[in-house]
Amino acid sequence: MLSKGTKDTLPQEWQELAQAAIEASKRAYVPYSNFQVGAALLDSTGNIHFGCNVENGAYSPSNCAERTALFRAIADGHKARSFKAIAVTGDTAEPITPCGVCRQVLSELCEPHMPVLLTNLKGDWQLTNMVELLPGAFSLIDERNMENT
Amino acid sequence: MLSKGTKDTLPQEWQELAQAAIEASKRAYVPYSNFQVGAALLDSTGNIHFGCNVENGAYSPSNCAERTALFRAIADGHKARSFKAIAVTGDTAEPITPCGVCRQVLSELCEPHMPVLLTNLKGDWQLTNMVELLPGAFSLIDERNMENT
Amino acid sequence: MLSKGTKDTLPQEWQELAQAAIEASKRAYVPYSNFQVGAALLDSTGNIHFGCNVENGAYSPSNCAERTALFRAIADGHKARSFKAIAVTGDTAEPITPCGVCRQVLSELCEPHMPVLLTNLKGDWQLTNMVELLPGAFSLIDERNMENT
Amino acid sequence: MLSKGTKDTLPQEWQELAQAAIEASKRAYVPYSNFQVGAALLDSTGNIHFGCNVENGAYSPSNCAERTALFRAIADGHKARSFKAIAVTGDTAEPITPCGVCRQVLSELCEPHMPVLLTNLKGDWQLTNMVELLPGAFSLIDERNMENT
Repeated sequence: MLSKGTKDTLPQEWQELAQAAIEASKRAYVPYSNFQVGAALLDSTGNIHFGCNVENGAYSPSNCAERTALFRAIADGHKARSFKAIAVTGDTAEPITPCGVCRQVLSELCEPHMPVLLTNLKGDWQLTNMVELLPGAFSLIDERNMENT
Repeated sequence: MLSKGTKDTLPQEWQELAQAAIEASKRAYVPYSNFQVGAALLDSTGNIHFGCNVENGAYSPSNCAERTALFRAIADGHKARSFKAIAVTGDTAEPITPCGVCRQVLSELCEPHMPVLLTNLKGDWQLTNMVELLPGAFSLIDERNMENT
Repeated sequence: MLSKGTKDTLPQEWQELAQAAIEASKRAYVPYSNFQVGAALLDSTGNIHFGCNVENGAYSPSNCAERTALFRAIADGHKARSFKAIAVTGDTAEPITPCGVCRQVLSELCEPHMPVLLTNLKGDWQLTNMVELLPGAFSLIDERNMENT
Repeated sequence: MLSKGTKDTLPQEWQELAQAAIEASKRAYVPYSNFQVGAALLDSTGNIHFGCNVENGAYSPSNCAERTALFRAIADGHKARSFKAIAVTGDTAEPITPCGVCRQVLSELCEPHMPVLLTNLKGDWQLTNMVELLPGAFSLIDERNMENT
């Protein structure tokens, strides 16, 4: 973990993105878990993309906040691995941690060292990245390059 | 199927949404299939939400265009089952058809009779809805209501 | 729907498979929904493969009973589209209906007219197939063949 | 990583499980990626459960080898977190690494320190576990316990 802290010590440059993640979480569609999660993704032009979790009665088609933010930014024309930062939040005891599916998607669409801020509604925070969150990530691109060389 | 036709017969009221779906498809992230799909979702205020497919090297975390459009609209504060219409397009011989995962998500987040326009890049089209696309759809909400009565 | 009925009218040839689905449902791992589903898949050699739903706290990695049965049969060396029948059951008011994800997987791995028996714990049943459950199913194989011709 | 090596140094106690993973990989249904993956899961009674990847034209309903092995073992009546070890293999340059979805499922269904053997067809191997593969894993069970205390 790169660094961590409580509400009073969140670096100034993260405050807008962390607040955006909280706002996004309020829009979650969570009739099954009642567990609201929000994400806010910063693109290379300085704009913020909101994401929330959207559940489904069949469970497996459910989507998490991080993925919603990433997919929508791609649909707005942003390129994979052009993003600058993401913040995620939820009502957890410790800073929320992304599920493995989201880690796989973050790993595909973001640079390995892009900063990832994990927070909770109390303001506890932890700064990390994909190298830490998905060590030795699977990448079909890497495998296919390998097979070609 | 409610109705169908070719490029020349697409009803006027669908032309903007169908064109938006084509624009959205150009933003697809499809390094594995090279199969671009676009969707355009009309909300209750008249705004259009773009969606494209976003693939992943691990395959199962991939997301389709229809879901991208729906998830982002929820994250923008729109309510489930408030949407007015969706158009989907791709480079297929016949009007493209949604995968089962998207049908399940559409079934959860849209009214059963909301119009769904399926098209292809040649302009062939088919107008349908979720009653036709996912007959007897699974709904946990229905089951839980049942258990309570 | 090909036919339907109640417990007393289930055709003799389906009784073993329907009972196997009930047995399979008891093995479900469902700490989040408490909603047990079972499936029983008949292969071309007459053997039955059990499946149950297996949930995950992150929701989207959850797997349904139908898919468990199909995936395991493939892992035992059975070929896609070699299966003879599947029965699915759960504690629902009407015969249970597969989610869209399972319909997509059934559509990939089974012949369109392979019989699918939907039941519930009371013994109500409905006989159907993939033509009815996923009309105009999406198939990348079809699209790729199309592009090659 | 707990330890690693090449074909000649694979510990004796892992050889049967590693070979079973190779056998399982040959049964993969991979018409889209042509990338065969196999897994072999050891249960508490000493039996081995085979898993392979099973792809889908819609990509997101695809299932990986590790998940196939785990889901089928649950459907055979084995309890979550009762498993002893898993081996995974594929034709990769380095020992194959599980995708994030599989890490999430492994994290739900296996003890954090259960040994996970990653290999490739050349016999390179790496011994790890879920503490290493999914640091700070998301768990809804943990969150719900937290809310109750």
